[in-house]
Amino acid sequence: MATEATNGAALAEHSVTFMALKPQVFVEASKVNDAVAFYKAAFGAEEVNRVTHPKRKADQELPLLISAEIKLGSSTILISDVADDSTAPVKATSTGLVFCLETEDIDASVEKAVKAGAVAESEVTEGEGACCGGRVGKVKDPYGIVWLICTPAKKCGDVEA
Amino acid sequence: MATEATNGAALAEHSVTFMALKPQVFVEASKVNDAVAFYKAAFGAEEVNRVTHPKRKADQELPLLISAEIKLGSSTILISDVADDSTAPVKATSTGLVFCLETEDIDASVEKAVKAGAVAESEVTEGEGACCGGRVGKVKDPYGIVWLICTPAKKCGDVEA
Repeated sequence: MATEATNGAALAEHSVTFMALKPQVFVEASKVNDAVAFYKAAFGAEEVNRVTHPKRKADQELPLLISAEIKLGSSTILISDVADDSTAPVKATSTGLVFCLETEDIDASVEKAVKAGAVAESEVTEGEGACCGGRVGKVKDPYGIVWLICTPAKKCGDVEA
Repeated sequence: MATEATNGAALAEHSVTFMALKPQVFVEASKVNDAVAFYKAAFGAEEVNRVTHPKRKADQELPLLISAEIKLGSSTILISDVADDSTAPVKATSTGLVFCLETEDIDASVEKAVKAGAVAESEVTEGEGACCGGRVGKVKDPYGIVWLICTPAKKCGDVEA
């Protein structure tokens, strides 16, 4: 029982480390390239990474770009499309702004958020995710903000964080 | 005329430096304290600064807190209330997420964003702003995202950036 209590305490205090918090702007697929160009022109943003769609072909209607990472000051923003196709693990159903929170410890992080009052909006899924692939969980907090909890970008891209 | 042309070119290439990009979450005034507590519990956020309302009294219905700055990983988020009172230079009319972009060069920054396709949503105003006071401009980009362009926090708070 003493051991169990100790384990319980250890679990309760399990600390999750977040590598990065990246606001993610979702725009219509046909406008992703325009949006990246706009943020460069408007705020001097610098493109540091882009994720192209593994299954889309150049001759398809939807653009190849599914997500671009831009740097604005010392912050990073993701610009992603909302195309609802089969390869997207987390369906983005509307344009707007969400937080992408990167961690190695996705399950514990989702669990902790839910325990604090967030609502899990989907199972943790694997694949080409919104945040550069890896695993992705999705929760909505009590204030209406959506958080994607996902594998750090450096684990699945060729860009060092 | 030659001088004018030179000035024109200099203006066109005027580069704006941004100190920080801070996502700002707007929640109902009565829930700001709850929200800060939630982000601490859910994501281990750390409160680094809070701005209390200069005119609200402790016995009023609305809370004293108008904005809290929390740290999540290496990022900073602002949690602010949407109370529509006379001291707020930029009225927040709905809950949700906007970007707060800090710069010394507010007017040039707003002008550049508008030239690139954003729409100015209010005049640049002075006072106790959403981003810790100072001057604040507000533009909406072509993708529906609202950007507050404001005086760096360190200029008006007691916390060094």
